[in-house]
Amino acid sequence: MTYCVGVKLNSGLVFMSDTRTNAGVDNVSVFRKMFFWDVPGDRSITILTAGNLATTQTTIGLLHERTKAPGARSPSILRAETMFQVAQIVGRTLREVIAEYKAHGHDGSADFTASLIVGGQIAGAEPTLFLVYPEGNFIEASDDTPFLQIGETKYGRPILVRVYEPDMTFADTVKLLMVSFDSTIKANLSVGLPLDLAIYEAGTLDRPTRRRIVESDREYRAISDGWADALRVAFKQLPDVVLDDT
Amino acid sequence: MTYCVGVKLNSGLVFMSDTRTNAGVDNVSVFRKMFFWDVPGDRSITILTAGNLATTQTTIGLLHERTKAPGARSPSILRAETMFQVAQIVGRTLREVIAEYKAHGHDGSADFTASLIVGGQIAGAEPTLFLVYPEGNFIEASDDTPFLQIGETKYGRPILVRVYEPDMTFADTVKLLMVSFDSTIKANLSVGLPLDLAIYEAGTLDRPTRRRIVESDREYRAISDGWADALRVAFKQLPDVVLDDT
Repeated sequence: MTYCVGVKLNSGLVFMSDTRTNAGVDNVSVFRKMFFWDVPGDRSITILTAGNLATTQTTIGLLHERTKAPGARSPSILRAETMFQVAQIVGRTLREVIAEYKAHGHDGSADFTASLIVGGQIAGAEPTLFLVYPEGNFIEASDDTPFLQIGETKYGRPILVRVYEPDMTFADTVKLLMVSFDSTIKANLSVGLPLDLAIYEAGTLDRPTRRRIVESDREYRAISDGWADALRVAFKQLPDVVLDDT
Repeated sequence: MTYCVGVKLNSGLVFMSDTRTNAGVDNVSVFRKMFFWDVPGDRSITILTAGNLATTQTTIGLLHERTKAPGARSPSILRAETMFQVAQIVGRTLREVIAEYKAHGHDGSADFTASLIVGGQIAGAEPTLFLVYPEGNFIEASDDTPFLQIGETKYGRPILVRVYEPDMTFADTVKLLMVSFDSTIKANLSVGLPLDLAIYEAGTLDRPTRRRIVESDREYRAISDGWADALRVAFKQLPDVVLDDT
């Protein structure tokens, strides 16, 4: 499994992804699931991946290939005019990859499905965030649904729903994502450290600020350790239940 | 979907279940998923159900049938000597029901699977809590895994993991379950009010204290409304993340 989140703020975009991949619990590896494309001053694109690793790596590989050589095969996400077109290209590429492997049938037990979060900004427009499905179609984050999750989304969702505000600072958003990831990691072995973090400040049109959060990360540890206590304090603060009228 | 939890405390057992059943989002009903059998002074048994409603109702119906007439078909959970035997009988009954419907094939899109939580006490032994799988096998709650969930378990799990203590009072446990259910209800349409609550005090060997929590329940509302604020307070209390070293 995997857990990835993309959050849309008034001030930009924040992305977090784990790095654990597994084919059964006895075959666990570390792979990056966060990828960047950028043309400084013109565009910044970030993609997060969840699902079959061969599918996502091939999809990312194809997207890279098509941006490289000057005469390379189009369409390239570095030449798309809008983030909407970027999402279309990514969706079609993902669908192609899945279709190719599916066409040859299942020799193992794997299925080839995958989902992606695509976010970024192109000069002249606002930052945008999409969730791309294996069928190649996609949805866009909005004011009503300002964060998108893929992979093992349920454990970490209640805290996002309750705490997110569109005018949060980047620092508070990172803290919120750390709590959301920590809740997931504590509950599900298939999501694991290290985590990749990227912060895109609206208007910068350059590669996001990045950080890898490893097991020994002081700040992550403080939040992970502090959250159990903080939750207990929050819980105590709730009005007591009186059982007499039961 | 459904959400049911059974919790084992030093002082007894607490059960909570929702009442929403749905066959698609356009076919939503209210059904009780919590059932009781008792012989005062001898035993108290509570069963919570998740899964295909026809399967769980038939299973509960069979268990009731077999306890009624004096010469009724055995085995009856009212004559089993231990809670372990009760779990065996429940498991076999569940498996039989699923097998019967499966044998006749799938005309609709439903599958017939279901899971149950079985808890209670028989005179001379401690209170015990089991999770019964559709295959008829089962696991028992222990000191390491003191609560069991069935149905839509993920949203409400992190708070249980972080706050549960074996020596909690019944009132605090009900509060904890209300938070866990509220987090689930806020995230998933297929889990809904009213909730059924049952509190079994160890040694009473009688029907648990029961309560139905409806939309207008003052205490539930206070906890549901207060939890968003309490979480934000807990979140603020966490150490701040410094982004300079990003």
